[in-house]
Amino acid sequence: MAELLWQKPGVAVDAQIQRFLAGDDVVLDREFFLHDIAASAAHAEGLQRIGILTKAELADLKRELAVLADDFRSGAFVLDERYEDGHSAIEARLTERLGDPGRKIHTGRSRNDQILVATRLWLKEKLARVAGLSREVAKVALDRAAAEKNLPIPGYTHIQRAVVSSAGMWWAGWAEAFIDDAVRAGDTLALVDCNPLGTAAGYGVNLALDRDHTTAALGFARMQVSPVYAQLSRGKFELAALEALGSATLDLRRLAWDLSLYTTSEFGFVSLPPQYTTGSSIMPNKRNPDVIELMRATHASVAAARTEIEQLLSLPSGYQRDLQASKGAIFHGFSRGMAALELLPALLANLEWREDRLRAAIDSGMYATDVAVDAAITGVPFREAYRAAAEGAATAGQGRTPEGSLAARTSPGAAADLRLDALRARWEAL
Amino acid sequence: MAELLWQKPGVAVDAQIQRFLAGDDVVLDREFFLHDIAASAAHAEGLQRIGILTKAELADLKRELAVLADDFRSGAFVLDERYEDGHSAIEARLTERLGDPGRKIHTGRSRNDQILVATRLWLKEKLARVAGLSREVAKVALDRAAAEKNLPIPGYTHIQRAVVSSAGMWWAGWAEAFIDDAVRAGDTLALVDCNPLGTAAGYGVNLALDRDHTTAALGFARMQVSPVYAQLSRGKFELAALEALGSATLDLRRLAWDLSLYTTSEFGFVSLPPQYTTGSSIMPNKRNPDVIELMRATHASVAAARTEIEQLLSLPSGYQRDLQASKGAIFHGFSRGMAALELLPALLANLEWREDRLRAAIDSGMYATDVAVDAAITGVPFREAYRAAAEGAATAGQGRTPEGSLAARTSPGAAADLRLDALRARWEAL
Amino acid sequence: MAELLWQKPGVAVDAQIQRFLAGDDVVLDREFFLHDIAASAAHAEGLQRIGILTKAELADLKRELAVLADDFRSGAFVLDERYEDGHSAIEARLTERLGDPGRKIHTGRSRNDQILVATRLWLKEKLARVAGLSREVAKVALDRAAAEKNLPIPGYTHIQRAVVSSAGMWWAGWAEAFIDDAVRAGDTLALVDCNPLGTAAGYGVNLALDRDHTTAALGFARMQVSPVYAQLSRGKFELAALEALGSATLDLRRLAWDLSLYTTSEFGFVSLPPQYTTGSSIMPNKRNPDVIELMRATHASVAAARTEIEQLLSLPSGYQRDLQASKGAIFHGFSRGMAALELLPALLANLEWREDRLRAAIDSGMYATDVAVDAAITGVPFREAYRAAAEGAATAGQGRTPEGSLAARTSPGAAADLRLDALRARWEAL
Amino acid sequence: MAELLWQKPGVAVDAQIQRFLAGDDVVLDREFFLHDIAASAAHAEGLQRIGILTKAELADLKRELAVLADDFRSGAFVLDERYEDGHSAIEARLTERLGDPGRKIHTGRSRNDQILVATRLWLKEKLARVAGLSREVAKVALDRAAAEKNLPIPGYTHIQRAVVSSAGMWWAGWAEAFIDDAVRAGDTLALVDCNPLGTAAGYGVNLALDRDHTTAALGFARMQVSPVYAQLSRGKFELAALEALGSATLDLRRLAWDLSLYTTSEFGFVSLPPQYTTGSSIMPNKRNPDVIELMRATHASVAAARTEIEQLLSLPSGYQRDLQASKGAIFHGFSRGMAALELLPALLANLEWREDRLRAAIDSGMYATDVAVDAAITGVPFREAYRAAAEGAATAGQGRTPEGSLAARTSPGAAADLRLDALRARWEAL
Repeated sequence: MAELLWQKPGVAVDAQIQRFLAGDDVVLDREFFLHDIAASAAHAEGLQRIGILTKAELADLKRELAVLADDFRSGAFVLDERYEDGHSAIEARLTERLGDPGRKIHTGRSRNDQILVATRLWLKEKLARVAGLSREVAKVALDRAAAEKNLPIPGYTHIQRAVVSSAGMWWAGWAEAFIDDAVRAGDTLALVDCNPLGTAAGYGVNLALDRDHTTAALGFARMQVSPVYAQLSRGKFELAALEALGSATLDLRRLAWDLSLYTTSEFGFVSLPPQYTTGSSIMPNKRNPDVIELMRATHASVAAARTEIEQLLSLPSGYQRDLQASKGAIFHGFSRGMAALELLPALLANLEWREDRLRAAIDSGMYATDVAVDAAITGVPFREAYRAAAEGAATAGQGRTPEGSLAARTSPGAAADLRLDALRARWEAL
Repeated sequence: MAELLWQKPGVAVDAQIQRFLAGDDVVLDREFFLHDIAASAAHAEGLQRIGILTKAELADLKRELAVLADDFRSGAFVLDERYEDGHSAIEARLTERLGDPGRKIHTGRSRNDQILVATRLWLKEKLARVAGLSREVAKVALDRAAAEKNLPIPGYTHIQRAVVSSAGMWWAGWAEAFIDDAVRAGDTLALVDCNPLGTAAGYGVNLALDRDHTTAALGFARMQVSPVYAQLSRGKFELAALEALGSATLDLRRLAWDLSLYTTSEFGFVSLPPQYTTGSSIMPNKRNPDVIELMRATHASVAAARTEIEQLLSLPSGYQRDLQASKGAIFHGFSRGMAALELLPALLANLEWREDRLRAAIDSGMYATDVAVDAAITGVPFREAYRAAAEGAATAGQGRTPEGSLAARTSPGAAADLRLDALRARWEAL
Repeated sequence: MAELLWQKPGVAVDAQIQRFLAGDDVVLDREFFLHDIAASAAHAEGLQRIGILTKAELADLKRELAVLADDFRSGAFVLDERYEDGHSAIEARLTERLGDPGRKIHTGRSRNDQILVATRLWLKEKLARVAGLSREVAKVALDRAAAEKNLPIPGYTHIQRAVVSSAGMWWAGWAEAFIDDAVRAGDTLALVDCNPLGTAAGYGVNLALDRDHTTAALGFARMQVSPVYAQLSRGKFELAALEALGSATLDLRRLAWDLSLYTTSEFGFVSLPPQYTTGSSIMPNKRNPDVIELMRATHASVAAARTEIEQLLSLPSGYQRDLQASKGAIFHGFSRGMAALELLPALLANLEWREDRLRAAIDSGMYATDVAVDAAITGVPFREAYRAAAEGAATAGQGRTPEGSLAARTSPGAAADLRLDALRARWEAL
Repeated sequence: MAELLWQKPGVAVDAQIQRFLAGDDVVLDREFFLHDIAASAAHAEGLQRIGILTKAELADLKRELAVLADDFRSGAFVLDERYEDGHSAIEARLTERLGDPGRKIHTGRSRNDQILVATRLWLKEKLARVAGLSREVAKVALDRAAAEKNLPIPGYTHIQRAVVSSAGMWWAGWAEAFIDDAVRAGDTLALVDCNPLGTAAGYGVNLALDRDHTTAALGFARMQVSPVYAQLSRGKFELAALEALGSATLDLRRLAWDLSLYTTSEFGFVSLPPQYTTGSSIMPNKRNPDVIELMRATHASVAAARTEIEQLLSLPSGYQRDLQASKGAIFHGFSRGMAALELLPALLANLEWREDRLRAAIDSGMYATDVAVDAAITGVPFREAYRAAAEGAATAGQGRTPEGSLAARTSPGAAADLRLDALRARWEAL
């Protein structure tokens, strides 16, 4: 069982209770360990700047922190149940190697701001990656929109054939979606890009910590000023990050739904490279688009992580142990969400349209709207034109082609005027 | 029963089914009706600019739309079950008053982009108000933080007495929280500030609509380019807006929890003006802080609205009728959320601290951290100083006062260095 | 503004705060009003039995309560913002008509147990209807399973063609699903079928109320014994009821998804009577399966109601005003959920298979599993038989027919041995 | 990388995609592995009964399955990433050890019904434990209710002092709550107690499997008849189980909230044995009730698991790979939920009331309701008695004692008539 930093003599410890308290905390802390080490080094620098540590002590601490990071990366040091948590493990290691400097490093900080700062650095990294991946997805979509702007595909509403559309329009839709997702991830990154280190247990300390230094040293855009707010932001920022991720995974859910339909035998619009499919244990004939289905499922895990944290946050201000559960939640949500997003650019780049099937799915009724609008252009009130077209919907297609329908679709953003330049400009600005 | 725009002859209509389809849609459309009228006017302008309407027809339409808006505001026109929805009601009224111009106004648009643009304008209005109210809350909090920076209050973790804190620190925490909420509402407003009008049913139309004009006329920052994305953003933007609102109502939930505790007999830290309390139907002695409890409950409604929309959005691209349920959800979430936020600035301005009770709740153990850090400053390794202080926690307070503790709390953001200027600068920049 | 039962002289009332406190409470109370009246009559009977009311007073009260119920049903009495809530309205009316007996009726009860008992009666009614409708759905499904047991349809996994299935198997699946949903609604009804009346504000009263009488008079199966638990069950029972409803609406969501796919042009397996479809405002060619889509959307509202209540219930024991929000939530969830379920039996009874399309969707690869199992029956290890069948999947169908495949599907529950008798026995026992 | 049962020659496998597909599936399968082995033995028995396996083959398979179970329990066999999933691991092991019998065991089953049956057995076990633990909690509560029926405690509404209550009433409330939770877990167990084995991939097989035998051999109460429903119940039953668990953890959340308040310095009603508290890394004075806080947090994890599965289940009928995510969800929800419930009986048995603090918190206003009701008993209309008591609330307590108040609380279920016999009778019947 782990040794406990705060243990007082004479208090019996119950193993089952300790396991309950620990949960899988120390295992989760692996995820944040390198960030904890980086923040510990910055904290030590700050302590040296205000005279709590000597330069020699700081040098020792920084060296041993670097060694610990290397050992962790190489597997020479394993963070496991021997420790109450990652924070305790760092202090224990430093004390074991260095003695008093190890016993000094916790001066002016609490595990409360320690986990806050490690999580914050982790969230920043993840949000940057969400932004980056969204940008990559948008790039593939923009490029394919330009390349395939003349490829007719059926356009649906209510999953019923509606009007002629184009691969260009479909791709442009996803491009604009993921540009927005990248913007959102960026906004959220800016929101959480503030340093909580130096707020201790939520009330500061009687020591003029050099928080400006740690803010700069750790690459934060600003200091999170209020210690009370630092605690209030626990969970709140995690939620914001999950919501930004969720914006992308929710778009992915709809995209995966399109592909799930398009890869059925009945639609048959899209071919997936075989590495994206799997077989069945009993049905020899099957090749299943499991990758797409698991991508569609991904948002559920992000939503679950949101729920887990949101339900916790019915608490007064100040740290409560309830918040420990937020660690597992963000880890779960992001590990699932990122795994899916990481695969998406290549999947989109590799999928192939089956033009024959697309064309075969464009039936003559799909020109009825064109017919009605054409009549409206000649002066027939639209509502009358609509009624006339409705009566003649079956024969509406006479003399019309998918190409002709697309060429006439001149409303801005539509097939004949995709305005990809506007999207590209937003993409460049990401 | 409502007359149906799209009704075809010979198809029987079933009353129970029609009620199911309608739901409370037309009643909800009241909420968006003025925005729908405004967007209809902009659309008509656009149609005139490309020759679908004459200048005279446009003038007629704009006049009648203005009359309709007036009649709606005055109650002379009631939007009710006589209409399938608000969109149909507008077209019906214009057709009834003007004939052909009414029949022409739907040229080049669909109810799909009509509800999108009306909702978009509504969301922008609400998000601006969320930002504004968050800003107001932050202002009260900043002002009281400055005024009450020397008032000692007990600081808690785990709802257990931890260290001396100050009213200044408590207020500064909420100030920074609501500044972030205002930032977030602003970011979200910027995200949704794009014009979907002119995307029709999600595939554009065979008409060179003047979308640049409607974008400018309706005050949007940019065009939402892709018609496919316009449909994909249905629900997505509503979620983003609810999440921004939820950021504020979740902070409110924690603030209300503080006040709920602080107004108990046992804590007794805060007095509420009597108008914030209610009585019991059976217990003559009660004055209950119902306002605070309903504020705490508010986030549940915002979360419910999120759930409702998020659960809908497991769909392929393109409009599906499922999305109709998103209207009620945003209305519910925002009406509850805003009602609570509207009351918050005055509540915060009016609450009074009970200084005697605050002081009485500061016990001597709450100086133990000060003692340990003071020892650390003199060179005792913190972990040793901690152990020594733990042993002497009961007597740690000897010679120490709340004021002394606060005066020594010099870490940036803490009582002796609140850094309100930094918060004020961010507030000014909102 | 409503007069307030508990109002004390000299306390100013703020209109905005009162509106916030009231919310739409009094309007929601309409839903529970007749149950509140019924429970008030039972309570009055109980009071007479212990001597608080005379027989004459009881007779007066019961008469006036009956008149009020009639007036409410007829619209002669409107429950609106003149009253703080439905409970106050009843007392006010009785006092206005009868004087002292009206002032006496609240003896020994609180609005806390008053709303509990009214809600409880309402929930019982709704759960009985969920059970009844699930039973009706199961009946249609059982009957059609028997009638269509030989109709081949393609069976899917991953929305990919898998093996031959039958309409009989499809219907039997929904039958068993809704039998379980009926069981679950029944179990939940039994759970909540206990009388909270007489628990007052959660601590009982100094009066030997005849709770056994009110329990019997209101048709409850048992008394909810503990006043503390009566309060703890607020929200808990609402959640249980929504979960039982949700079990049915979640099955409905999947059923609606099947129908949404099956009514596409691409699948084309099912025809819906025209009253289940609607048109488009812009596309003259469209008939959309909106009823099915709104059915699919229904579960989102039930889930939202769950979220709303669950998020509230992070509270200590005893009544808190937060719980007021649970009223709107159950009303919302059940009104949406029941509206969809009410339409379902007829929809299922009326949908028509398109046999030609079903048959055309059965391709030869769908016999590969049959081939492998046939080989296994002859002694080839299944894993080898599987590999052989996989290599020959394209030609697996030679000499095989859908009918032959179904006739050989002899595993219990499969096409050749549907075991409808077992399902019918469970259905009879509902 | 795992070898894949269904792998076809010539299809390249991408490592990143395979990792995404696998997720942590094989690790999760450890949880269900012994159940999978048990179900495999039953399946083999069934195959022998219909002639697919010889008696010798069956004996070999059962022996090797037993050895595998032992090896798994002892750690000699580790289920890890060498295998695609637990199902493949079993087949691979049997084939390695036995040759053809291993290749035969998958005859007539699919991984679809294999995971269904293993999960079903697991859920039954967990639900039985939820019922058992709820029963244990109720027992402690019933016993303490009887023992402490005369101990006065303050009763709260709105966390405001309301009326005198008793420890007996408080305990009886939790007893009735957890009796209901045990009932609910039992109902849910009965709902899911049906055997899906033999439904293959959701459409049965061309083999007269002896499902009656496997149903009996695995201890199921009945067969899940329809293969289509077996697939539809994936996720549905998991949700039902989580909802039953959630009923208990939601009660626990409220119980933990009581204890969180009662262990504050301000309330100070309850002492916890020291093993239930922890210290702080920075504040030497702290002993924090972390166990209670983590218990309070537990429901969030159960709710998250519900969300994860519910969000997945927006799918047509038939298996979809999305459902794989349901495994991690139930494991997460149950591991957190059970860990908390396991600790609860002892915690409740061990907590100690601080009588002096309880008594000190009963102020004179808390008799006002007694006063009003006493007046009503003498014939004063309650509403007048209420007004009189309200005016005299401050002096209402004259001559009254907590004991007197409790002794007069004669409404059934209240302090003077707890009706523990009724609760005990329901408890006995569990």
